Amino acid sequence: MFNFSLMGAGRIGKMHAEIINSHPECSLKYIFDINKKFANELADKYNASVASTAEEALENNDIQVVFIASATPTHTEFIIKAAKAGKAIFCEKPIDLDINKVNQCWDEIKNLKVPIQIGFNRRFDTSHNQVQKNAHSGKIGQLEMVVITSRDPAPPSLDYLKDSGGIFRDCTIHDFDLARFILGDDPVVEVSAFGSQMVNDDIIKINDHDTTMCILKSKKGVLVHINNSRRAVYGYDQRVEVFGSKGMSISNNQTPSSVEYFNESETFSKEPILNFFIERYSQAYKDQFKDFVQSIKLNKDTNVTFKDGRNALILANAANESLNKGQNIKINYD
Amino acid sequence: MFNFSLMGAGRIGKMHAEIINSHPECSLKYIFDINKKFANELADKYNASVASTAEEALENNDIQVVFIASATPTHTEFIIKAAKAGKAIFCEKPIDLDINKVNQCWDEIKNLKVPIQIGFNRRFDTSHNQVQKNAHSGKIGQLEMVVITSRDPAPPSLDYLKDSGGIFRDCTIHDFDLARFILGDDPVVEVSAFGSQMVNDDIIKINDHDTTMCILKSKKGVLVHINNSRRAVYGYDQRVEVFGSKGMSISNNQTPSSVEYFNESETFSKEPILNFFIERYSQAYKDQFKDFVQSIKLNKDTNVTFKDGRNALILANAANESLNKGQNIKINYD
Amino acid sequence: MFNFSLMGAGRIGKMHAEIINSHPECSLKYIFDINKKFANELADKYNASVASTAEEALENNDIQVVFIASATPTHTEFIIKAAKAGKAIFCEKPIDLDINKVNQCWDEIKNLKVPIQIGFNRRFDTSHNQVQKNAHSGKIGQLEMVVITSRDPAPPSLDYLKDSGGIFRDCTIHDFDLARFILGDDPVVEVSAFGSQMVNDDIIKINDHDTTMCILKSKKGVLVHINNSRRAVYGYDQRVEVFGSKGMSISNNQTPSSVEYFNESETFSKEPILNFFIERYSQAYKDQFKDFVQSIKLNKDTNVTFKDGRNALILANAANESLNKGQNIKINYD
Amino acid sequence: MFNFSLMGAGRIGKMHAEIINSHPECSLKYIFDINKKFANELADKYNASVASTAEEALENNDIQVVFIASATPTHTEFIIKAAKAGKAIFCEKPIDLDINKVNQCWDEIKNLKVPIQIGFNRRFDTSHNQVQKNAHSGKIGQLEMVVITSRDPAPPSLDYLKDSGGIFRDCTIHDFDLARFILGDDPVVEVSAFGSQMVNDDIIKINDHDTTMCILKSKKGVLVHINNSRRAVYGYDQRVEVFGSKGMSISNNQTPSSVEYFNESETFSKEPILNFFIERYSQAYKDQFKDFVQSIKLNKDTNVTFKDGRNALILANAANESLNKGQNIKINYD
Repeated sequence: MFNFSLMGAGRIGKMHAEIINSHPECSLKYIFDINKKFANELADKYNASVASTAEEALENNDIQVVFIASATPTHTEFIIKAAKAGKAIFCEKPIDLDINKVNQCWDEIKNLKVPIQIGFNRRFDTSHNQVQKNAHSGKIGQLEMVVITSRDPAPPSLDYLKDSGGIFRDCTIHDFDLARFILGDDPVVEVSAFGSQMVNDDIIKINDHDTTMCILKSKKGVLVHINNSRRAVYGYDQRVEVFGSKGMSISNNQTPSSVEYFNESETFSKEPILNFFIERYSQAYKDQFKDFVQSIKLNKDTNVTFKDGRNALILANAANESLNKGQNIKINYD
Repeated sequence: MFNFSLMGAGRIGKMHAEIINSHPECSLKYIFDINKKFANELADKYNASVASTAEEALENNDIQVVFIASATPTHTEFIIKAAKAGKAIFCEKPIDLDINKVNQCWDEIKNLKVPIQIGFNRRFDTSHNQVQKNAHSGKIGQLEMVVITSRDPAPPSLDYLKDSGGIFRDCTIHDFDLARFILGDDPVVEVSAFGSQMVNDDIIKINDHDTTMCILKSKKGVLVHINNSRRAVYGYDQRVEVFGSKGMSISNNQTPSSVEYFNESETFSKEPILNFFIERYSQAYKDQFKDFVQSIKLNKDTNVTFKDGRNALILANAANESLNKGQNIKINYD
Repeated sequence: MFNFSLMGAGRIGKMHAEIINSHPECSLKYIFDINKKFANELADKYNASVASTAEEALENNDIQVVFIASATPTHTEFIIKAAKAGKAIFCEKPIDLDINKVNQCWDEIKNLKVPIQIGFNRRFDTSHNQVQKNAHSGKIGQLEMVVITSRDPAPPSLDYLKDSGGIFRDCTIHDFDLARFILGDDPVVEVSAFGSQMVNDDIIKINDHDTTMCILKSKKGVLVHINNSRRAVYGYDQRVEVFGSKGMSISNNQTPSSVEYFNESETFSKEPILNFFIERYSQAYKDQFKDFVQSIKLNKDTNVTFKDGRNALILANAANESLNKGQNIKINYD
Repeated sequence: MFNFSLMGAGRIGKMHAEIINSHPECSLKYIFDINKKFANELADKYNASVASTAEEALENNDIQVVFIASATPTHTEFIIKAAKAGKAIFCEKPIDLDINKVNQCWDEIKNLKVPIQIGFNRRFDTSHNQVQKNAHSGKIGQLEMVVITSRDPAPPSLDYLKDSGGIFRDCTIHDFDLARFILGDDPVVEVSAFGSQMVNDDIIKINDHDTTMCILKSKKGVLVHINNSRRAVYGYDQRVEVFGSKGMSISNNQTPSSVEYFNESETFSKEPILNFFIERYSQAYKDQFKDFVQSIKLNKDTNVTFKDGRNALILANAANESLNKGQNIKINYD
């Protein structure tokens, strides 16, 4: 039985609380949130205690695992404290928006050897995961191209956007990780990125973009395209296509039911696709957690490492640089 | 080079005239229609002559083949005269609505040994034809069930319906033939049929039906379902499903383009399906004709025989009897 | 909080135990099974008690609800005892294979006014349920035809089949109920049924069938087709199509993922469809239970009544009679 | 009636000969090819004359239209001579591989005002064309992104590749034109291109690529992605996706039939997609020609102008430059 402290009781924290609580080998013991009301509600629901300070949750002797679902700027501090207390750690993406803070965090924890997993949940989606397997099982032969389509149903508020770190570090980071996951041991070496401001005018004010396209090139020459939008009115558009010398495999969009309509103006018509990430990736979030628990139980390396979190951020930063300079950026992972 | 007389210059006659004219080994020489205006128009278009009497077209020494696309009640008379004149014959379905006339016709022509093919065009549709092959190639194992969906886009006029012979002899006869085609040498031995009057009230006045379902059973136990409607607002619904011990194959509906739509209320949506038979079965009509020409050229039996035309009518009559009596009808092919 | 006794700890009982246990307002208190090992295992897992006799489970003062998932021949006895003890009852389908026992059961309980729901889970499948709604919301206009395809992935053992009551009362009963559900207040008035023995030879020995087709006709003239097989190698084939004056809606098959394959011999290819009922109808079983709990909580009529269970059996019996006599059977619900 | 000279009797010339011949208002009079055998065969088939010199075909008083389907290096010479002789001109893509020759050609002909259309057939494909309409009809709102997938089924010979001008000017030029067609009056202003050598080793020897990705940005900020491969084993992969503020529309791949397969390892499976361009774009080639004839008949501007041919080449050259320099290229149309 693993006892957990949960850092953060907001929307994503609530979802993780339920997942932790449902796992037969896990128990949710402490909850910390700077918003005490949120922390209390969640503690009541799962019969857990509210920690009065972050440290109380992070360093408590009763717990073995810290689950970090708090605001991004708190991540590295919580990781360092939990690691120093010898806890296993699950941290939502991104580790931080600042690569220097990420590097400093790694310097602090690398010798502590605590298990740590970063929340790139999409790797665990049954369909995306199957497509990744197909890219290496021989089913599509030698991998040559990857096309990732990733569009949110509706833009978040300007308030959220201001602190988001920009679309590449907020949204595309998931797709950069997915690209890295699919490429396996073949690293991305070059990036080109384009961005536009199409969805609303406010995005210009904060110098961010809402419509973007990237091309990545791997060391072996595999080309990867990613396109993103902050708004897809038909739902949360999440597709992954892998193409190779012997075929292609696509993880296509999913609708809530299998119902089709036919009438005088349309045929084979289905409902809007699943919307939004908590619904679309419900299975992925659960399986990500099971996988994490299995890793710490068997004392194995986790399947999404600190380095994975850092490298996805490096790609996001390179995309920003490419967009600003109007040229390809060679990736430096040092 | 085969010279043709075409009997009938109505909607279906016009279509066949173009097909005959486009075939590199065929020449359209004579056209007969009781409507002289229709005959003249078609003759002008294809540089053919108008025959002043049916006999002139049927018995002319210049022609080798008679193509019968005239009104159903004229079919058997034209067949007999053409056969006696030694012509090869293509006759649109049905041979006649009256099984006695069909039998008499056969008695007259059976010893003349002229090639004759009946116009069950759907056998030649690429997709339906492939499904039939799949039913026997081992691809679906032993055939066990067949489901045929066949719905017209909109009901014809009451005038047409009055002389149509009823839905089973007018529409379902195509599906009975398709069922026989798919079953191959395994004959239908029993039929049950249901009918309703749902599309409009006039259908009741003429004691016909517009919504029907049948079950056929073959000698080997294969079960066949056919459903028909005179009205499908989304287009001409034409599907064939074959199911067996090792799988299933479906000939699905076809849209004019491959365009899909996604918006806030629908996804994966396509246009209404192809509508109507001249458009949907355009390829089938052409390939049916090529196949007929190939048969007479190589002096082989045609692939849709007089017997096929007669047996489909026997099934249609049995369906009528089943519907009237409320019981299964055993098929007697004698 | 509702306390439950569960009758039957076999495959389906185990599934229901988990569902009861997961419901926040329900508690699984007693388990009865003639197989004590099964009962003990389940009781251990959910911290429940094993009842030493059926009566102990059915009549216990601590419980408010009896969930009957035991062998079919025990159903009516358990229903009667539970009803007399004033318990709310959920009973798996079928109520019994013998209409006389069903009628006697009803005579015993009808005045006791206890809530009772029969386990026709498919009504609660998101897709089938949506199709039923579409049949009455105006979305497809006036309902005219229904086509239900229902094929099991693999035949059960001969031992199971011998006591199953035959395919119409064992399998098709679900489809008869679904047809009744879709038709709403328009009753089935006539049935025709065909059966074949295609899957294996043993089925002949026990005078059952493994491949069947039915047509039902409703009072208003709606035609319903049902086809069944005990074996579909591509998975558990579960489709429902409703057709009307303004369109069509289909509840199509579902695959475990949204992955498509393209290679040199196939395109748009997906995995085998979900298999078997516990997986395919997982959501439906849960929502069926929620709906039942909601009904008893609000003291409302249940949404699948004893009469629904009885009427589906009447249709199954009529199908048997039709198949044996080779004629349509008019339905008598008295 | 328009009389035609056809320049070039190779594979594509043969196809165009048949299209010209089938048009009711066109007559194929002269054929020129440096391969006299090819010219003779085609002339025999369509009852045309073989021109002994290019000039005889281009300047003949009997003809009104010159159709250029000869080798690319002959295009500008033939265009200039035909234009000086006052002929209407249809010229297969590309006008030339060298932008200087294209510019000189334009200087020579621009004041002659003869009708000229360039062979970007894909604009006339029913599905792609519909998608283009959808991008401007309001059906998807304001256009924001375009994704074009364009993969040949199998690589051509090294001999062909050596003279092809490289993948961007040989293949992608079609997609650059399609992008321009979809963008309408919103010009492409910037390009980034990547290329890899994945399909075979020979491509490296000639310094070409077989696997490429581009991003284009329009003046209004619309982002366009194009990906190409010289080899897609599942057929000729031709997809166009337009995405906007109110939805998305996709022109998806097409299979030769509508047949689906279901067996124990796959479901919803279709045949390989249509392959190759003569088959896939058969309808587009015909409608392109009809459109051209209509333009010259009504004395209107053609729908695919010399400038369209030139601008697509400018984009292809910019893509080459981007790939070589590793940076975005701003487009200069002067």
